[in-house]
Amino acid sequence: MRVAVLGGDGYCGWATALYLSKKGHSVAIVDNFIRRLWDHELGAQTLTPIRTLSERLRVWKALTGKQIELFVGDVTDYDFLSSCIESYGPDAVVHFAEQRAAPYSMIDRKHAVFTQVNNVVGTLNLLYALREFQPDCHLVKLGTMGEYGTPNIDIEEGYITIEHNGRKDVLPYPKQAGSFYHLSKVHDSHNIMFCCKVWGLRATDLNQGVVYGTITDEVELDEALINRFDYDEVFGTVLNRYCVEAAVGMPLTVYGKGGQTRGFLDLRDTVRCIEIALLNPAGRGEFRVFNQFTEQFSVLELAEMVRKAGKELGLGIRVDHLPDPRVEAEQHYYNAKHSRLIELGLKPHLLSDSLLDSLMNIALRYRDRIDVTKMMPHVYWREARNTRREQAAIAVQSVASGT
Amino acid sequence: MRVAVLGGDGYCGWATALYLSKKGHSVAIVDNFIRRLWDHELGAQTLTPIRTLSERLRVWKALTGKQIELFVGDVTDYDFLSSCIESYGPDAVVHFAEQRAAPYSMIDRKHAVFTQVNNVVGTLNLLYALREFQPDCHLVKLGTMGEYGTPNIDIEEGYITIEHNGRKDVLPYPKQAGSFYHLSKVHDSHNIMFCCKVWGLRATDLNQGVVYGTITDEVELDEALINRFDYDEVFGTVLNRYCVEAAVGMPLTVYGKGGQTRGFLDLRDTVRCIEIALLNPAGRGEFRVFNQFTEQFSVLELAEMVRKAGKELGLGIRVDHLPDPRVEAEQHYYNAKHSRLIELGLKPHLLSDSLLDSLMNIALRYRDRIDVTKMMPHVYWREARNTRREQAAIAVQSVASGT
Repeated sequence: MRVAVLGGDGYCGWATALYLSKKGHSVAIVDNFIRRLWDHELGAQTLTPIRTLSERLRVWKALTGKQIELFVGDVTDYDFLSSCIESYGPDAVVHFAEQRAAPYSMIDRKHAVFTQVNNVVGTLNLLYALREFQPDCHLVKLGTMGEYGTPNIDIEEGYITIEHNGRKDVLPYPKQAGSFYHLSKVHDSHNIMFCCKVWGLRATDLNQGVVYGTITDEVELDEALINRFDYDEVFGTVLNRYCVEAAVGMPLTVYGKGGQTRGFLDLRDTVRCIEIALLNPAGRGEFRVFNQFTEQFSVLELAEMVRKAGKELGLGIRVDHLPDPRVEAEQHYYNAKHSRLIELGLKPHLLSDSLLDSLMNIALRYRDRIDVTKMMPHVYWREARNTRREQAAIAVQSVASGT
Repeated sequence: MRVAVLGGDGYCGWATALYLSKKGHSVAIVDNFIRRLWDHELGAQTLTPIRTLSERLRVWKALTGKQIELFVGDVTDYDFLSSCIESYGPDAVVHFAEQRAAPYSMIDRKHAVFTQVNNVVGTLNLLYALREFQPDCHLVKLGTMGEYGTPNIDIEEGYITIEHNGRKDVLPYPKQAGSFYHLSKVHDSHNIMFCCKVWGLRATDLNQGVVYGTITDEVELDEALINRFDYDEVFGTVLNRYCVEAAVGMPLTVYGKGGQTRGFLDLRDTVRCIEIALLNPAGRGEFRVFNQFTEQFSVLELAEMVRKAGKELGLGIRVDHLPDPRVEAEQHYYNAKHSRLIELGLKPHLLSDSLLDSLMNIALRYRDRIDVTKMMPHVYWREARNTRREQAAIAVQSVASGT
């Protein structure tokens, strides 16, 4: 299968591109490296020392004999994107090429507008490019479980059957997203559903939970293939951040009461879920939604698990409850369905003590690269402007005072 | 009350600005006149010879002694918009300043992207400007009944109580919009709901039906105050278009079977609904939705009503069923609630024979301004590119051949 991975230089995208290449698919990466630029903007960097994409691809070719093609450019540039689709002629497109951090979208108005315009326009461009040049191509789009929010009823996979006043219909599941980023994914979902209807496109929306881990069989092959591992307050996902905090002896930063419950999955399941979606494509005109996660935890439960695993590694770990920088329910009902990928063959890697050990060992291995000023939250949902300058100033001060 | 009317030079905006000014409110119009530019782009014009906004405002002042303030600029320019909000200090903002035509958004990719970016960014800017400079201000936002699509259950006003697997919640009503324009309003609704939650803003989303008519007590005062009356296939709403078709002896252009059923309202009810929303503001943090229409009809029922009214004026009118240029159900269940504005005091102007007579008389009065090449649909939902050049060429040919 010819697969274009948009955003293939990023966290999930890179792991996915290697996995699909290993499985014998022809893979092309489309990326403009803006994720690396955001690290510079935030003064943050991945815990793991990732290489340039050209080096990564050279090493991959040398190790496996497999060539991953590369198109460098921005999906919001239609001339570029449509020429990629036309010349590469993919059977499927996996679309990771969006700004994916809720806190980044909440920094201020410019970041909110950037996130929504970047994500919505990139996806609109892709829909038009498929319509014009590759209408039979299967779009595999990364959505987020955050589109649903935390309703007081069970969360279904994309649609819900509603009986109302004696009549019945199957309708899109109501959306209550919790940041401008999550809202951008809601907008995308509505746009894609419409294009499947009017143009007969085929699409799978993968409403992904929070991903943890950094290792897959492929990225483990060589140090040069190492994947991102973000732990900063903006791009770091919660479990990765806890492990890094544990490694440097910082208290784990639980927001509020910690009852915020979400779906989680191992990065190795992300790549497998993508493959499952590709091998079982949506039909023409179908807009299909899978909830892509394997277990649900509250953020406090995760913190307790990290504390326990750390204890066995000889680390004394404290859990701190910070005022929640977000606006979200800190205790709520949460029961989200996630059977469709299992039915299609997913065998989950569940979060066990051994996995937590390996995550913490990665954090300990790259301990010297940890910037302890990056974990505390500085982006508050209730503020219209969160200045990043203050944070830079704090970082400078810490260096000067040797703390 | 100090009210800023964004998009106050447009069809509903102008009528609203005058109505609120007459009622004794302080009114400011914010507009960049782009609606007039779109007429040039499409080679179309309003049936009624509207004047420049500066002339309109001068005549209004001369007739009533009432001054309407004017801010000329684009709501997608945050510096401009936020300075308007800061300097004018409105108690309420009525936000009409969006691209409002479904066919315009479906012309091609550029028009789709323009519509979504323009509408979403304008509204995001407004939300941030209110948050920063006028957090207690009541946002009255024009949405559309088209956000709901045509579900097989009753349409409620913004929210629906769902019982599911033994639990219950009140959730946003599922959205199934039918064009990139309607989708932009869905995106807006989600963004506004979120900002009410995180920032405690107060907002009323008026999901308006299809508006007809052009006359209000205020615009009737003087020829110089005349309002827009669009009849072209892109900006003309269906009943206005039928009346113009009747006036020139063209068959009425019903799309497909004509069972497409929608909510409709008289322009005089639009302005009253806005006033009702203003006088009964949403609470802090509340995102409230009213369905703003008074009657529902299928487009074929409307055509039959126009034929009947035309007969009494001595016009022989034929109804043509054209292939539907849109992708929509041509026969469907439709029952949309619309009691909240009635409960707050709306007394509807229902569509009677006498109103239809007056609409057709307007069409007959300005018969010489009708361009008969503008009514046939040229924007097809199933196409990715609808070239407007062909249509211009047809128009030129018609002139040359005297047809």
